[in-house]
Parts: sequence; C-alpha cells; structure tokens
Amino acid sequence: MSGKNQTMFFNNNPRIISGMSVVGKREGEGPLGKYFDEVVLDAKCGEKTFEKGEQQMFHKVILGAIEKANLTPHDIEVLLAGDLLNQLVSSSYVARELPVSYLGLYNACSTMTECLALGASLVDGGRFNKIACATGSHFATAERQYRYPLEYGCQRPPYSQWTATAAGCSILSSDGDGPAITHATLGRVVDYGINDLNNMGAAMAPAALDTLLAVLTDTGMDVSDFDAIFTGDLGRLGAEILRDLAREQGIKLGQSYSDCGEMLFVREQNCYCGGSGAGCSAAVLNSFILRKMNEGEYNRVLLLATGALMSPTTSYQGETIPCVSHGVILENVL
Amino acid sequence: MSGKNQTMFFNNNPRIISGMSVVGKREGEGPLGKYFDEVVLDAKCGEKTFEKGEQQMFHKVILGAIEKANLTPHDIEVLLAGDLLNQLVSSSYVARELPVSYLGLYNACSTMTECLALGASLVDGGRFNKIACATGSHFATAERQYRYPLEYGCQRPPYSQWTATAAGCSILSSDGDGPAITHATLGRVVDYGINDLNNMGAAMAPAALDTLLAVLTDTGMDVSDFDAIFTGDLGRLGAEILRDLAREQGIKLGQSYSDCGEMLFVREQNCYCGGSGAGCSAAVLNSFILRKMNEGEYNRVLLLATGALMSPTTSYQGETIPCVSHGVILENVL
Repeated sequence: MSGKNQTMFFNNNPRIISGMSVVGKREGEGPLGKYFDEVVLDAKCGEKTFEKGEQQMFHKVILGAIEKANLTPHDIEVLLAGDLLNQLVSSSYVARELPVSYLGLYNACSTMTECLALGASLVDGGRFNKIACATGSHFATAERQYRYPLEYGCQRPPYSQWTATAAGCSILSSDGDGPAITHATLGRVVDYGINDLNNMGAAMAPAALDTLLAVLTDTGMDVSDFDAIFTGDLGRLGAEILRDLAREQGIKLGQSYSDCGEMLFVREQNCYCGGSGAGCSAAVLNSFILRKMNEGEYNRVLLLATGALMSPTTSYQGETIPCVSHGVILENVL
Repeated sequence: MSGKNQTMFFNNNPRIISGMSVVGKREGEGPLGKYFDEVVLDAKCGEKTFEKGEQQMFHKVILGAIEKANLTPHDIEVLLAGDLLNQLVSSSYVARELPVSYLGLYNACSTMTECLALGASLVDGGRFNKIACATGSHFATAERQYRYPLEYGCQRPPYSQWTATAAGCSILSSDGDGPAITHATLGRVVDYGINDLNNMGAAMAPAALDTLLAVLTDTGMDVSDFDAIFTGDLGRLGAEILRDLAREQGIKLGQSYSDCGEMLFVREQNCYCGGSGAGCSAAVLNSFILRKMNEGEYNRVLLLATGALMSPTTSYQGETIPCVSHGVILENVL
C-alpha cells in the first residue's frame, strides 16, 4: 500500500526519560485511574474558564514531567506541543511561561506521536538533547468548539466518543533511562468519506490501517513482533473497524491490540464508544504504557495515535473528515 | 538574552531547490507583483466559499513548486504545512489530495520558518530527501475568523495590518541547486502585554528581537554578515519598533533590513501598516528572496518570520498576545 518509505529509523536511542499524566475526574474513575500521576477534580482547575483550566492542566503536566526527570525548565531546550483549542491556545499560552523554544504542532488527536516523531528526530540528530513533547485536551472546551456547548444538553449518538480531559508530557533525551523511540512512521491523510462529526472512530480507522501497513512494510516487522499495539483513540467502534480492515489485508490484530480511547472508560461511565482527544493517547502513553515498559512487561510497543482533521467550518460546508495517524515504536534497549 | 543554544547548524546543505508563490489580486498589484509566479484574480478561485478558494490556492502552490523542481507529487516524501484557518483546514484538505506523509504545524505567521527549520533538519539528518514546506493565508477567511466578517464593514485602525491572500511553497532536498538552509533558530514565546488584535506588529516585534539576538549569539554572526535581513510580517509600525528595540541592544538594523509585510503593499493601496498572514513571508521568500539569491544579488539572508499566537477566544477572555519568531539563514553555497 505504501509506495515509498514513511519511516525514520533512529540509531542514537532517543529515550523517554520521564512521562507525566494529568486527567480529569471521570478519567480518574476509569480503569486506568491508578496509573495516572494526578487526577484534577475541578474541571476548571480553580480558574474562571474551562480554557484557563485546560492551560493549568497543560502547565502542570509539563512541569511535572520535567521534575520527574530531575530537571528544571531551564534544562529543556525545545517544547513540541499541540492541543485541540483553536490556534493551539493551551500550548502557546503555556509555552509563554517557559524559557524554551516552542514548536506548535497540530494533527488533531495524533499530535502526540507527531511530537514524539519530530522530537526523537531532533534528539537523534544530536541537535538538541532535552525536549519536552506534550499534548492535552479538555471535554468542556473541545465539545463547545467542535460540536455544541455543554449547556445545550444535546443528545449524543451511541457511536460518539468522549473528549478526554487529559494531558500527557514526555521528556526526550539520549541520556538517561527509559524506553527508546526506535522508529517513527509519518502518516498520510486518508479520507473514506465519513462526514458525521460524532463518528470519528469510523473516520480514523482507515488512517490507522494505512500507517500500520507502512510500519510493517518499512520495518519488516510483523504484528507478532510487538508485545502490544495501541491506537490513539478510535474508540470501541473504530477499533473493531480497524480489526476488520486489517483482517482484509491479511493481518490479525489479536489480544495484543488495544485502543487508548477504549481503555480510558468502562461502559458504565456512559462515555459511549470511549475517550478521544489529543490528551487521550498522551495520558495513556505517559502512565500505563510507560509503566508497563519500565516494569519490563512490554519490551516493544507500537503506538499509533490517530487524528480527525475536521473543523466546524468545513463540516458546515458539507466536507468529509480527513484523518491521519503517526506511529512510533518504543523499545526497551540496553 | 539567550541562556542556551536555540540554533541548529546544518552540515549537509539542505537546499531550497524550488519555490512557488501564488497571491491575490491586491498583492499582485503591489510592489512585488512582478516577482510572484501567479496572481489569482478571483478571491474564491472559482469555488463557492473563500475557504475552498484558499484550499485551491494552497493546492496550486504546492503542485507548482513540485513541478518547478521537475518532480511529481509521488517523489515528495513529507509535506510540512500550516495555515491560519481553525484546525489547519487548508493544509489538511490539500494533504488529503497528495500521496505524501503530512505533518501539520502551527505557529501563526511564523509557520513558514517553522516548516523550513524542521524540514531542513529532516533532510540534513538524511531521513528524507524531498520535502515540501508550505503555508498560506487568505484575507477573507482570516478576517472573519480572527476579527469580523468583511460584510460588517468594520473600520480598521491605522496601525492594523492586512492579512495577505498568498501562499508559498519550498521544496527542500540535498540534491539539486538553490540556496542552502545553513542554520535554523527556534524561537521562544514572548509577550510584552499587547492585547489589541489589530496591533500585531507591536505584539510581534519583541519576539523578532528575541530570536534575532539568539541568531547572533548562537552563530557568532553580526548584522553586517547578512546581505539582507527580513522579518515575516511586522508591518511598518512593527518594523520601526524592532529597529528601536534592536538599537537599545546596541544593534543597528540598517538598510539591509526589510519586513515582508511592509514590502507587500504601498501606502496608496490602503492596507494600513502592510501585509500579514502565514502566506505573507512564504510568498515573499518563494518569489523575491529566492530570485535575488539565485541571481547572486544576495548570498546570505536571514529570514525571521513572526507569529502572533492569539485566538478570538483568548482575546474575549482578556488575554494578551503571545508571539514567537523562528529564524532561518539561507546561503548560496557551492
């Protein structure tokens, strides 16, 4: 499916030397609750608006990751960050508080692996050696921007997803301990014609497949070479669609495959098909996945964050939803 | 002013092997008109909406740059692109039409140098060797998103700028001819407390200064080492402020300094302080600057695109405008 190489191979072991996750109350009550570093009970984090609350959470997760790496903000050279708020509001306003170079990235909910791919490439090339990669999202700010203000009390279809109130930050360096990013596969934009803003899992699954195929082709690896494969936030329905699409290509995604959005909530939490949002895969990576890797339960993991690149304007104009997925391979190396 | 190194030094001559610019009618009537590759007379490019018109322009500039490099879209490995429309609409929808990996970047009007910095780093590291960097903006779409719909006929203050209807694309490769990107300096976020959405020149000038100082410190170069220095789009007022701020630091920005926004229009065109927008510096780079370099009139150029990272939401909430500027040094090398 992939005619040319989309994958970067890193030789100098850019590592995730620390990771931090901060989530909202509902995410903290979910199955992964015990893995998160911090659960914020007040959705506004003591601020006057949800937007400022999101910034607080974003700030907290970056400073937390820096501290966990035994560094100070002055040690960090570059922040690669993105979020869902129009014009990367949270990232930019948090970057203002930090003495670091700032690169704003946006590929919707796949922004975390976009940050990790570019961050790892900068560390691997020896250009910088202390890089922070961070993304976040917030249920209240994203819903009112992309769909409807919460106050409308709109009904949601059963296949919709719940934008996670969550943020995650990874510190990358070639010095220190932690899983290395050994490969990064840059995704192409795929659009199978879905135009329902609530059905993002179905929209994003083909992009996840496209990048999965590129990973396998470019690296020569097989699904069985990974201890675990995670997609970003396809949700329950999207993950099922991905399994079907992969099977059609002769690839069996077995027990080792999970979706970060599906993992975030149980059905009883009424979050429909599961979590989504740029913070979803970032928080799961920097809690559950890193923990399992550092404990040696996983030694090689593929993370395919997925993003739906729509905007309210294009949806009003009748457009379908283009999607993208970037993949990173994490390995425990000596 | 800069405590740590913000600059990447490239050793393998990532070059701009071709550049293409497409602009609107008013930009075409300005002083740089004869340098642009194409002037689009219909602001909607034959489409039904301004947004779709912007996408057409974006598409045109990328395909044009690829063609000028004697390549096909299938030769391009990665597209790094960004624009001003909420959620990078134009970039993402154009990326959908191309068989390439896509990285969406957003640092407002400094996105072009952000793309060039990361693109050059990927080429220099040998990871990819045919990269397209593109940004664009459109007066009608940006004004209604950031300020007021044009139909309101709002008066504009004399210090406001005119979002350029313009797009530019550079093809980067280490094979071929053209000026090399020898250094890239990643900017930090600077906010001096301006909260007037119309006064972006004043907001952005301190960020341009911060990155200019980092360029000079990190490279050991002096202003006189450059044949020309361009800022992205500070406009007439912002450029004057930058000259003042630089003078306070003992740096004399003489005749060799110009601003892409100021260059785009003459006063008689009623564009107030000049052009702005992510497409402004991209179009000037890929027309005037590249031409002057390829003709040997300039041999070393510093381009500091500048971005104002505000959003309507934060402005309504009383926030000031954080700004950033990324710099690239272009050199004619053997």
